[in-house]
Formats: sequence, structure tokens, C-alpha cells
Amino acid sequence: MTPLFARMTIAGVGLIGGSLGAAVRAAGLAGEVVGFGRSEANLRLALERGLVDRVARDPAAAAAGADAIVLAAPVGACAPLAAAFRPHAGAGTLLTDVGSVKGTVVEGLESAWAGVGPVVGAHPIAGSEASGAGAARADLFRGHRCILTPTPATERGALARVRALWEEVGAGVEEMPPSVHDALLARVSHLPHLVAYALAAAVGEQASAGRRALDYAGSGFRDTTRIAASPPGLWRDIALANAPALGAALAEFRAALDRLERLVAAGDAAGLEAALAAASAVRRRLGGEG
Amino acid sequence: MTPLFARMTIAGVGLIGGSLGAAVRAAGLAGEVVGFGRSEANLRLALERGLVDRVARDPAAAAAGADAIVLAAPVGACAPLAAAFRPHAGAGTLLTDVGSVKGTVVEGLESAWAGVGPVVGAHPIAGSEASGAGAARADLFRGHRCILTPTPATERGALARVRALWEEVGAGVEEMPPSVHDALLARVSHLPHLVAYALAAAVGEQASAGRRALDYAGSGFRDTTRIAASPPGLWRDIALANAPALGAALAEFRAALDRLERLVAAGDAAGLEAALAAASAVRRRLGGEG
Repeated sequence: MTPLFARMTIAGVGLIGGSLGAAVRAAGLAGEVVGFGRSEANLRLALERGLVDRVARDPAAAAAGADAIVLAAPVGACAPLAAAFRPHAGAGTLLTDVGSVKGTVVEGLESAWAGVGPVVGAHPIAGSEASGAGAARADLFRGHRCILTPTPATERGALARVRALWEEVGAGVEEMPPSVHDALLARVSHLPHLVAYALAAAVGEQASAGRRALDYAGSGFRDTTRIAASPPGLWRDIALANAPALGAALAEFRAALDRLERLVAAGDAAGLEAALAAASAVRRRLGGEG
Repeated sequence: MTPLFARMTIAGVGLIGGSLGAAVRAAGLAGEVVGFGRSEANLRLALERGLVDRVARDPAAAAAGADAIVLAAPVGACAPLAAAFRPHAGAGTLLTDVGSVKGTVVEGLESAWAGVGPVVGAHPIAGSEASGAGAARADLFRGHRCILTPTPATERGALARVRALWEEVGAGVEEMPPSVHDALLARVSHLPHLVAYALAAAVGEQASAGRRALDYAGSGFRDTTRIAASPPGLWRDIALANAPALGAALAEFRAALDRLERLVAAGDAAGLEAALAAASAVRRRLGGEG
């Protein structure tokens, strides 16, 4: 059987890009997987770990002969990467990404790739605070969602190929408009990241009677702030690329926090318990597993 | 060797009280461990799981003959429990607790127990969002901190016995004034709980184009809100009992969150990355393990 792609170039072989490379190779979905990146050490590690067949540090070498290019870099780097690949890409080369923001990113890619080939926005909802090729694993996407965000410009055939790619690596694929994706992810991902960073920042330097608060952190603080260990450059880009939806989510969060604080300040035990119980019920619906 | 306590009564055999019972029995620290509680089902489970030697649902039976009573109930229930045990307690009975707030709680216990015996405030920093006798385990405190909060009224001998108790079940014991404990725990525990509850509350009912945001939650949201699954009654009491320190911690958190939001709104990529990197460094210092 012919593989889905003859040559797939993955730009950025970190946790997501590297895991995709490993999964594509394991499933035989591409004739060849080429890893592109800036860090020689990370590319070497990706090669050693078998995440890619070969590596390239030059955009021309990376784009040449690829029938699909997957951008697995911070969202702010995606459009510039597409522009760097563009002069070297063959006609019809499919461009897709894995970014956590879709509206501004897909718009940027469609513009940068106009006249070259089809663009399909994708976002596999998987990952952790870990990063780099060392954290990549072929089963990262298994049982997770991957959201595709077609626009009026999206080619149906390209969309089908990207859907097949993610289904073959084990993800459950769903389609929705970029703006809907960004509204949903602002709430369940971008907001929690900003909150975790703020919590770590607020507590980091606190002390009482010469004792550092952080030394008394238990599992609750560790859980709540775990994603604050995520790469700052990645989340800087995401926050900036989805600023309006994130702002709306922040306003909702503030209203919820203000409400709890008012109940505490008023000493309203019954009201506070009811509010905490409602929040607790939301969380319990999700279950314990990550 | 004579055990540390002839008969220890534990009021509340949930996660903390039940684990203490199991650990005390395993280490032979008490001649007998009596479990007191309101829920017959939970007491039966505690007995079946060997967390206690016997159970009592009546304050008189629970207090009679005990040389130590450990209050392992929600902090709001501690002073009322002490008052209920008081008429039945023998002279010199040591009263201690495991509450997450110490200032108002120890004050309440010293007042309720005046003329009966010594009072020692204690807080083992262990636990999770799990609750009940079913979640208890003898090694819960091993390698964790237990903070003792002596006051000018604390008897030195009683303090030494409570220290020995926690050291024998594997905790690292530290002493500090109640107000210092409350300031520290407001930052690393009470604040993150309120934030997690607010996050779950804010996101719980959000939807976009008929899709429920919660359905798109990944491991980041799950981690960040895990402690929002904690028992609401427990955290209602803690928030109310430590309201002033919690208010100060909330103000610090809001300032940190406002700062991040201003950087996002201003599109200040360099400033935002620096702020996220500083927060990330704080979290990385803590390490990954709970």
C-alpha cells in the first residue's frame, strides 16, 4: 500500500513534532520523515531516538521533495517558517500545523502559503509540561482528540489526508471553525496556563518569619502549578495569538474568583459551601486521569 | 516498651485521621486506637480496613479513658467536638488536631479544653483530593512535613509527645507560631484551592457553538483543577478560618495575574516571556513529584 505521504517534513521535533514523527514512522504513514529544527543537539537526539529518518537544518533541504510539511513550532514561528519554506516547496505541497491557536495562525499560514498548496489547521490536544525530542513518544496521541479547523479556503482532499494522518496515529478527529476552537481552548487550556504561571509567580518569593512559602508546598500546589513549568516561549506565543478569547476567559475566571472571595469575606458559610460544591461537581465530572 | 499513648481516640477517620490510625497501629504507638465519627458506613470501613481497633459514635464512649484525642475533622468542627468530649475526658487528656489552619483553631481548642489538659496544634502536610476511610493508608505521612504550632500556653511535655507521634509515623516535624503557619499555608495551599475551585466554576458551564468547553480539557486543565475535587465542607471551613491571610494571598495572586494580562493586552512579547520564564523557574525548582 502506498503510504499517505511520500516525504513528510516536520519542522520542530520537540514533544509534539517528535511524537508525530515516531508515530508516523511506526505506522508507516510516510515514505520518509525529515526533521527540521534549529537545535543541532535536539535534531541529533531525534535521530538517535528514531523519531525521524533524517534531519535538515536548512529550509531548502527540508522543504525540497516534501509532499507534506508539518509545522510543530511555537505558534508565533509558524508563518515565518512557512515563508522560509515557500521558495523551496514543490507545487501542491500540503502545509499543516499542530498549534494551540488556530484563528490567527491558520490565517497567517493561508496567506504565507497562497499559490503553493493546500493548508489545513490542526491541533492535537496532547502534551504536558515536558518538552524536547527526549520527551517524545509514538503513543502520545492515542486516545486524545485532534481538532481540525477548516476554513472556506480549505481543500477537501487535503483535509481528508490530514484527518487520516491523525486517525492513523490514534487520535479522535473532530472539525470545527478556528474561532470556535480558540474560544474553547482559551477556557480549558490557555486560561489555566496563565493562572498556573500567575500562581507560581505570586507564591515564588513569599515568605513569613524567614520561612520561604514554597518550601511548604504540598501536592496540591504542585498539581495546580505543574503546567507553569511549560516552555515560556511557547505560551508567550499562544497567549498573544489568542489574546481576545483569553481576555474573555480571564474575565470569567476573575468573576468566579471574586464571587468566592466575597463569600469568604462575608463569612457566608452556606453560600461558600454551595459555590465550592458546584465547582467540585464540575471537576469530579472530569475524573482523575490526565 | 510502653506505647506513646495508652488509648488514642481519633475523631474523624477520613483520609488524614484514618491514615494516622493505620500508622499508629502499624508502629505500635498506642495501646488502643478508637475511631469516632458520625458516619456509620465510614466507621465500619475504618474498622474493616484495620485503621482503628474499635469505633465509637457517642462522645462519652469516645472520650472515656483516652489519654490523647486527635481531632481530624473539618477545622470548623474542632472546637465544637472538643466541647462535646470535654465532660467525658479524664484530667490531663492531651488534645491535638491535624487542621490546615492553626491560629483561630488552636485558640478555640485552648479555650474549649481549658482546665482539662494540654493542647497541641499540629498540621501534617499530606493528603490529596481523595477523602474518607477508603483513601487512608499507613504511609501517607512518610517523608512529608508536619508542622506543630506551640503557643505560650503549650505544655512542653505534651509538645514532645505529639512531636514523637509524628516522627514515628515518618513525618519531618517543624515548629512555628500559628500565625506564621497560617501565612505560609494561605499561599501554598489555601490560595491554590480557591483558584482551582474558581477555575472549575468559571469553565464548567462555558460553551462555544454548542460545544462544551469541558469536553476539550486536556491534562493541563485536569492537573490545575484536581484539588477542586476536594470536599467542599473542608475547604469552606479552611477559607473562613484563615480569611485574613487568604485575602492577602489572593491580592498577591491578582497582582501577578493582572501583570500577565497587561503584558498580553499590550502585545509585549519580550516582557511576557520574561514574566512567564520567571514563573516557570519557580515551578521547576519544585520538581515534578507530588
